[in-house]
Amino acid sequence: MKKNVIIIGATGFGGLGLIEILLRHPNFKIKQLIARKDTGKDINDIFPSLKGFISMPVQDMSEIIYEDIDLVFFSTPDRAGMSIIREFTSRDIKVIDYSGDFRFNSSDDYSIYAQNKSIDTVHLAPELLKNSVYGLIEKNREQIKNAKIIGNPGCFAISMILGILPAVENGIVTDDKIICDGKSGVSGAGKNPGEANFYPQRHENVNTYREGRHQHLVEVENVINKHSVKKHQIFFIPQVVPMTRGILSTIYFSCPEGMNQKKLTGIYKKYYENEKFVMITDHSPGTCEVKGSNFCKIRPAWDERTRTAVIISVIDNLMKGQSGNAVQTANIIFGFE
Amino acid sequence: MKKNVIIIGATGFGGLGLIEILLRHPNFKIKQLIARKDTGKDINDIFPSLKGFISMPVQDMSEIIYEDIDLVFFSTPDRAGMSIIREFTSRDIKVIDYSGDFRFNSSDDYSIYAQNKSIDTVHLAPELLKNSVYGLIEKNREQIKNAKIIGNPGCFAISMILGILPAVENGIVTDDKIICDGKSGVSGAGKNPGEANFYPQRHENVNTYREGRHQHLVEVENVINKHSVKKHQIFFIPQVVPMTRGILSTIYFSCPEGMNQKKLTGIYKKYYENEKFVMITDHSPGTCEVKGSNFCKIRPAWDERTRTAVIISVIDNLMKGQSGNAVQTANIIFGFE
Amino acid sequence: MKKNVIIIGATGFGGLGLIEILLRHPNFKIKQLIARKDTGKDINDIFPSLKGFISMPVQDMSEIIYEDIDLVFFSTPDRAGMSIIREFTSRDIKVIDYSGDFRFNSSDDYSIYAQNKSIDTVHLAPELLKNSVYGLIEKNREQIKNAKIIGNPGCFAISMILGILPAVENGIVTDDKIICDGKSGVSGAGKNPGEANFYPQRHENVNTYREGRHQHLVEVENVINKHSVKKHQIFFIPQVVPMTRGILSTIYFSCPEGMNQKKLTGIYKKYYENEKFVMITDHSPGTCEVKGSNFCKIRPAWDERTRTAVIISVIDNLMKGQSGNAVQTANIIFGFE
Amino acid sequence: MKKNVIIIGATGFGGLGLIEILLRHPNFKIKQLIARKDTGKDINDIFPSLKGFISMPVQDMSEIIYEDIDLVFFSTPDRAGMSIIREFTSRDIKVIDYSGDFRFNSSDDYSIYAQNKSIDTVHLAPELLKNSVYGLIEKNREQIKNAKIIGNPGCFAISMILGILPAVENGIVTDDKIICDGKSGVSGAGKNPGEANFYPQRHENVNTYREGRHQHLVEVENVINKHSVKKHQIFFIPQVVPMTRGILSTIYFSCPEGMNQKKLTGIYKKYYENEKFVMITDHSPGTCEVKGSNFCKIRPAWDERTRTAVIISVIDNLMKGQSGNAVQTANIIFGFE
Repeated sequence: MKKNVIIIGATGFGGLGLIEILLRHPNFKIKQLIARKDTGKDINDIFPSLKGFISMPVQDMSEIIYEDIDLVFFSTPDRAGMSIIREFTSRDIKVIDYSGDFRFNSSDDYSIYAQNKSIDTVHLAPELLKNSVYGLIEKNREQIKNAKIIGNPGCFAISMILGILPAVENGIVTDDKIICDGKSGVSGAGKNPGEANFYPQRHENVNTYREGRHQHLVEVENVINKHSVKKHQIFFIPQVVPMTRGILSTIYFSCPEGMNQKKLTGIYKKYYENEKFVMITDHSPGTCEVKGSNFCKIRPAWDERTRTAVIISVIDNLMKGQSGNAVQTANIIFGFE
Repeated sequence: MKKNVIIIGATGFGGLGLIEILLRHPNFKIKQLIARKDTGKDINDIFPSLKGFISMPVQDMSEIIYEDIDLVFFSTPDRAGMSIIREFTSRDIKVIDYSGDFRFNSSDDYSIYAQNKSIDTVHLAPELLKNSVYGLIEKNREQIKNAKIIGNPGCFAISMILGILPAVENGIVTDDKIICDGKSGVSGAGKNPGEANFYPQRHENVNTYREGRHQHLVEVENVINKHSVKKHQIFFIPQVVPMTRGILSTIYFSCPEGMNQKKLTGIYKKYYENEKFVMITDHSPGTCEVKGSNFCKIRPAWDERTRTAVIISVIDNLMKGQSGNAVQTANIIFGFE
Repeated sequence: MKKNVIIIGATGFGGLGLIEILLRHPNFKIKQLIARKDTGKDINDIFPSLKGFISMPVQDMSEIIYEDIDLVFFSTPDRAGMSIIREFTSRDIKVIDYSGDFRFNSSDDYSIYAQNKSIDTVHLAPELLKNSVYGLIEKNREQIKNAKIIGNPGCFAISMILGILPAVENGIVTDDKIICDGKSGVSGAGKNPGEANFYPQRHENVNTYREGRHQHLVEVENVINKHSVKKHQIFFIPQVVPMTRGILSTIYFSCPEGMNQKKLTGIYKKYYENEKFVMITDHSPGTCEVKGSNFCKIRPAWDERTRTAVIISVIDNLMKGQSGNAVQTANIIFGFE
Repeated sequence: MKKNVIIIGATGFGGLGLIEILLRHPNFKIKQLIARKDTGKDINDIFPSLKGFISMPVQDMSEIIYEDIDLVFFSTPDRAGMSIIREFTSRDIKVIDYSGDFRFNSSDDYSIYAQNKSIDTVHLAPELLKNSVYGLIEKNREQIKNAKIIGNPGCFAISMILGILPAVENGIVTDDKIICDGKSGVSGAGKNPGEANFYPQRHENVNTYREGRHQHLVEVENVINKHSVKKHQIFFIPQVVPMTRGILSTIYFSCPEGMNQKKLTGIYKKYYENEKFVMITDHSPGTCEVKGSNFCKIRPAWDERTRTAVIISVIDNLMKGQSGNAVQTANIIFGFE
């Protein structure tokens, strides 16, 4: 039997991504589309590309019907759903949240995240944090099965974490800090027109921003250091490049004596041998290869001359970096393939 | 009085860049345009954007008239002008060469460069190498004045070198290796259609290539270690992003105790205080800011948490990264402002 | 039971499009991938985006196994499959051909087409022409069911034909000639790098080409005049715009007294009321709305002041303009929904 | 001696264009930069690409110093400068206005324009209209010399007018209406982020808008019918394509018996033989050819089969379509070459 889902924040890119995937999914049924703006309009008037595939009104939070709902996606900005989520968990409805609200188990970690992002640092539902699980499927599959709330990882975060974990768990990183140089398309910034996605200023332009202070840092260091054989700092420089979708993270670290290309590749292939959506490649993957798919492709390359490893990790930021990972999580919760 | 110049390789992007600059330059006069292909055609039929500004036939090497020529630009690929250059130096005509042929003073260095680029490693005019000067204006201004041959720096190379020199000369780099993560538009690959500049595969695509083996590495390490207080290796990952012009290099290194943002900025500002075309900025510059200009903009940023410096260096790869630097060099040779 | 298909020309954009659709199709099974180049390689090494979805070697024509094959797609250039197709029709294997070889029932029409395209004008299998059907589903559904060979329409052609047919069949075009102004992304030109898809010359560039002499003209005029109440000429100016996928055709004609917006929309809505993949819209559709889908969206707009109709017709040139239409045709042949 | 100019609206794209041109102009000196927002900031903090070329504060209207000013550019939106312009004309300061406020000699024409653009239709300085001249240099050179106010033409308008005038003045257009199909980059919409220039919705998207109701229609029909041997209507469909700069207008009309390619080209070449910035080409020009230049390139093409002329006219919408034309006008006013 199909599981009934509600999408909150249905009119953003995250909502669109979810709708596109769920329409083709045999096991989920979209029951309601909720948003703050454009209520009353049909979703296919907001996204004309959906015409012919779905016709459903956008409704207000106040119109939610909780009966028979199995799962709710909060595709909303930080803090928008923070306290509302209780309405769902108290009715035993599973929650997958796109924001940073439930990516941490302690309100202390949350407040560091919030500070980096220059938003209010007080968590409004601290009692729910202990029941939330970080939606990193590749490490937390078992906990996800029974979780009440899943905090879906940040897009830059997941591309870095998947690239770093095999190395730190296998203790092959000798540096105290790991350098991550990230490049993202503009859709990561969401649907609000601004400087980053203003065509005349974006096209023919690459630039860095929030150097060393990106909000995804907390979750990356948290996860890395939970699984690493020694403690590492992450130094992360995000960059925006002139394209819509895609993230390429270039990750640098030194390795102990004896490392070589074959060993490095072997470690990565073994680590992900059972993961359907993480692929270790022998070529250098471009972001276009994963566009529209839920794959993370990782190329671990070894430079003998400088004895440095460089891990190249690519995802579609709206798929494995967002909606694709969220639906993959939902599949695990309900035992779907 | 105007200086007479010949452009060899006039039908490529480098030639176009030169023509555009020289047409507006009060002190140079283009006498001949030479190329291998399209001889007989008017240059403005090859580049319709030049119509109305210049009308001049493209001629063959055999048609060169050496009389009264002061300067020749070789805007040609590696090895194309290597032995022909003698024809000019023997007549006391100054040579500015865009390729890697004369960026080194020893044929040994050349052969490492050539090997990285998978081309013939034997230099055909080794006796000229001792008379060639690397066209890094910011360090070699005096030598350039009297040089017979200038090897114009590689585009990635100059963006890295200008970003690294102030740090290594001031001894503030504690790491043995310096990590450089470069992003370039596609015009760096020249005018030959190929995979890197094939629209459907380039748009919406970022990818790395020749990881740790880019041919510009030799010249960067050469220059850096010539001026550094200690020896460093450069680990350089080049990346192509979906745009035509522009290079952004992100350079990472650790610093000794006591470093902070103010000191770092101070070191860079002082180092370039007399350089008109290198600008130290307090904001993070995007490549669009230098599009069409000869500026290199550098932002030195300090991350206190991880005690890491990140230097962001942007240029227009066809200007400061190629033709702009070449004409700036020509100005120095002839004492123009 | 699944129908077995072979794809010839599997390594081009058309082949890729087919593979992507057929992999998700419940009723077709890809048996062999044939191409001229890259034989022996796995298709997913040629298109890394297919890794994880399919692994199948590219084979040579000589390796085709005809047994149990129900359908063959020729995703090949003009004349590449022209005489080979007999091998399949003689074995009662259905053929869908992407080129212009079988879009006409007479070799005379073919030779006009070929002349426009500057290719050999002699048809090599004229006896097959009488058995071929033009793959315009919206008009030829019945003939397609029993056809041996389907000539899949040109991408520009189908966007124009679908935009013009309702008007000419209803006799509301008073002009003798109909003006069509087409804009296409670069993928229409296929996978061969050239000037049209050379990134530095394509980005920031719109240009016209083959004004009034595009090869799709013949098939458009053929179909239009077969169904029109009076004879019309088509004046078609194709244009390339800086994007990968998508065609927007803007079609202009005058109407008789009494026309208005409501009537015009009514005529179009009625004409396509049973067509699942043609949608008449009240807003002006952008090409991004149909990207990746098989829809043709048409906006018929009436300008009262000048008494002119303008029909805006958008498709994804690789879907409804190519592979999407081909698979839709295949569904009709075998009675699939 | 240099002429002193003030730029009002200095912080928009039009202002930036002016500054870039005037900085290289030997005869003009920028005295003040005026804007509504960002007053107090240096212009090179607003446009970092200007750093190194100019440093000047943005000032408020109230800070204008009128003494010794020869010319003011109003690079402002509709109605922003409408009544303020009096302050300048009363002091015998020449005015070049970018908006539609002074493109008409009658307030009736203005009100049609205003209605099309959905703005207030009442002109606030009707007494100045009789002293204003439409800045179409190619027709109004003499009037411009003595004009007090120049209404700089709209970008789409000038590309169409220059393409149509030779035909209608020579009486070779037999149709009552002339069809114009325009394609523009996004910079025409100015510096305000919105749907048209939102990267994720603009890239990979072509769309039409305001079909037959674009505000430039009035000025085009005005000028055309003033000079035409018979009256014509213009049916104009504007389109936005994914690029920043450039306009390509495709103009369609029928011609009388006897027309051919040679005659058509001859008419156009003769018409513009003395115009430095209008170039008649034998090839089909792309917008990239005029990027950054003040040229309008026009290709008149004749289709014998359908007896239709198609005129392809390309400009850089920020140069000949805006600032380039404005400075060309200023040169004429003061007699500069």
